[in-house]
Amino acid sequence: MAFGWIDEQAELRRRAGLVRTLRPRPADSPLLDLASNDYLGLARHPEVTAGAAEAARSWGGGATGSRLVTGTTELHGELERELAAFCGFEAALVFSSGYAANLAAVTTLGPHGSLIVSDAGNHASLIDGCRLARGVTQVVGHAHPDGVRKALGPHEGPAVVVSDTVFSVDGDAAPLTALAEACREHGAGLLVDDAHGLGVLGDGGRGAPYGAGLAGADDVVVTVTLSKSLGSQGGAVLGPRRVIDHLVNAARTFIFDTGLAPAAAGAALAALRLLRREPGRAARARAVAAELHARLTAAGLEAVRPDAAVVSVRAPSPEEAVRWAADCRTAGLAVGCFRPPSVPDGVSRLRLTARADLSGAEIERAVQVIGAARP
Amino acid sequence: MAFGWIDEQAELRRRAGLVRTLRPRPADSPLLDLASNDYLGLARHPEVTAGAAEAARSWGGGATGSRLVTGTTELHGELERELAAFCGFEAALVFSSGYAANLAAVTTLGPHGSLIVSDAGNHASLIDGCRLARGVTQVVGHAHPDGVRKALGPHEGPAVVVSDTVFSVDGDAAPLTALAEACREHGAGLLVDDAHGLGVLGDGGRGAPYGAGLAGADDVVVTVTLSKSLGSQGGAVLGPRRVIDHLVNAARTFIFDTGLAPAAAGAALAALRLLRREPGRAARARAVAAELHARLTAAGLEAVRPDAAVVSVRAPSPEEAVRWAADCRTAGLAVGCFRPPSVPDGVSRLRLTARADLSGAEIERAVQVIGAARP
Ligand SMILES: Cc1ncc(COP(=O)(O)O)c(C=O)c1O
Ligand SMILES: Cc1ncc(COP(=O)(O)O)c(C=O)c1O
Repeated sequence: MAFGWIDEQAELRRRAGLVRTLRPRPADSPLLDLASNDYLGLARHPEVTAGAAEAARSWGGGATGSRLVTGTTELHGELERELAAFCGFEAALVFSSGYAANLAAVTTLGPHGSLIVSDAGNHASLIDGCRLARGVTQVVGHAHPDGVRKALGPHEGPAVVVSDTVFSVDGDAAPLTALAEACREHGAGLLVDDAHGLGVLGDGGRGAPYGAGLAGADDVVVTVTLSKSLGSQGGAVLGPRRVIDHLVNAARTFIFDTGLAPAAAGAALAALRLLRREPGRAARARAVAAELHARLTAAGLEAVRPDAAVVSVRAPSPEEAVRWAADCRTAGLAVGCFRPPSVPDGVSRLRLTARADLSGAEIERAVQVIGAARP
Repeated sequence: MAFGWIDEQAELRRRAGLVRTLRPRPADSPLLDLASNDYLGLARHPEVTAGAAEAARSWGGGATGSRLVTGTTELHGELERELAAFCGFEAALVFSSGYAANLAAVTTLGPHGSLIVSDAGNHASLIDGCRLARGVTQVVGHAHPDGVRKALGPHEGPAVVVSDTVFSVDGDAAPLTALAEACREHGAGLLVDDAHGLGVLGDGGRGAPYGAGLAGADDVVVTVTLSKSLGSQGGAVLGPRRVIDHLVNAARTFIFDTGLAPAAAGAALAALRLLRREPGRAARARAVAAELHARLTAAGLEAVRPDAAVVSVRAPSPEEAVRWAADCRTAGLAVGCFRPPSVPDGVSRLRLTARADLSGAEIERAVQVIGAARP
């Protein structure tokens, strides 16, 4: 029977305890949220939701076409200008998701004949970009500038080095300065995904590349998502104008995709303006993460020191991770639970996010619940 | 210099007259729109924009996480249930874009060891899905069930046949009944992308698979987009529950992508309810397309007979197509202009969309402008 093999795979997953199911949440969940990527607590901020609502009313429910046909509104232009200026880049191009932005950046900057050097811990969307690109991909060790140097050494022709700035699973930061040095020694471009850096790292949340003094460099391209610190949906590529123009002409996930919905553009723009006005939110997210880490460690848990707003706590097994997260939920706390096959290293963990708007009492409660439920 | 090769490509594009630029549109464009994919004229319908605005206010600017973590709201569940029921399928899964839905469907239904048979005219997102999938892809002639049979014949193991239901460039329909027959002779699954069929074809706009009597079959999976007839953003996969469960567990563009923004889900849901209440909108879009085609042909233009709401008019060259579209724009009419490299066959054309809410006078005016500007 067509699709019959699906049942066998489902059975294997069931036996391995790896079945995933969706759990629709109500509009007003009683859970304390340490699972979302709403790092600055802006997704439900009244200015952000008003930004979405007003954009939908002014511009419609959708962009109505590809950005190259009818899908570019003045609102998209405004968002691109403000995003580029905020992060310190010449130009920006907005996509329907961070995933689409990453596919676009990697495929267009890793053309036929080029070498793509990719960190082993990179996000799925960067990996899929490498798979789709016409260039040859070489995977190097995690956060390993010397591995990058070695990969670049023998290659002739265009090369691009691809890395997350903050790795989504463990929350550790890439060695951006060393990566840029390695790239420059070899004339390679540097492409970094600042999905978890924007809004959290760099002066006032301008992002990790800004923090590393790489913003605006002519050999650096950055992707960001509008779906985490900016509380919306969508993604963007930031870089020199000529790179952005190239993407407009060559990126399939730009050309053949409907433009970002006006409401999402409006929400992201409102969040960006809020962050510009209240730059302390970025530092607060980092402080919450540091406090969470300190308290968890003090409680004897094995947590990775956070470089941004993600705090990762080791679990002994996938089953224990699932049980741990479920017990937290029963006690009123939502935490992320990452386990195979969606972690590159096969290690299961709880993933906590340090929202800037968590109170001291909430942090205290979270640590208590996590500690009490530990395997 | 890093990214230096981009300048050479830009120069080649400039010389070939193939440079694309973005043209941001104002909220209230004076142009008559025959370029968007807003087939039912719903993107700016007050119920649709209110659906977006209310969802943003109730649920926030973004979904805040992967659908598997915090990104599934009850609103997503509602949209999935109503979409599946409307199109006649057991279950549905909503994605951040139609592009992401297609990547998910092709990669998960074309696993290692399988054969993927893909129509030569398929949309870029299906093609990228084939490139990302672990199965082997065989491209067959456009709308060619015998080619499909030939491809399936010698293959052992799982196979899936992939096709648009309505091809986006020329607006012609796939031979769905014959494709399903060919699949069934060989025990292959059928995966069709109804991006341009939903809202236009099938009883009351239930889509091309519904119209062909294939809805709800256990060997048929359908992808749709929320960004065309439903005036929003997003995509969905419709099919048997077991297939949908498989996608939840295996689709990278589902697992590693932030859930669709509440405003987009709300807009799509409002549009779907409107269409259910006013099923005549689908027939009206088809009638407008037929009238456009008849009048253009009567005026001596070479237009493809439309099977849905897209009317394609041949242009003698890319340069003439661009000039033609620009002249239409000067005369107050927005039309699509498709040319290499974004058309699979290298043929340049104007692409007109027949919105259900175009009046007789607007159709008349469009035909006059297009005729007067012809090369
Ligand atoms: C590092 C990283 N890059 C890209 C993405 C994709 O962004 P989006 O969800 O906005 O598509 C994510 C998460 O979703 C991510 O964690
Ligand atoms: C046939 C077809 N499939 C899929 C898509 C992608 O859908 P979306 O734009 O919603 O991502 C499009 C157009 O955009 C299309 O024309």
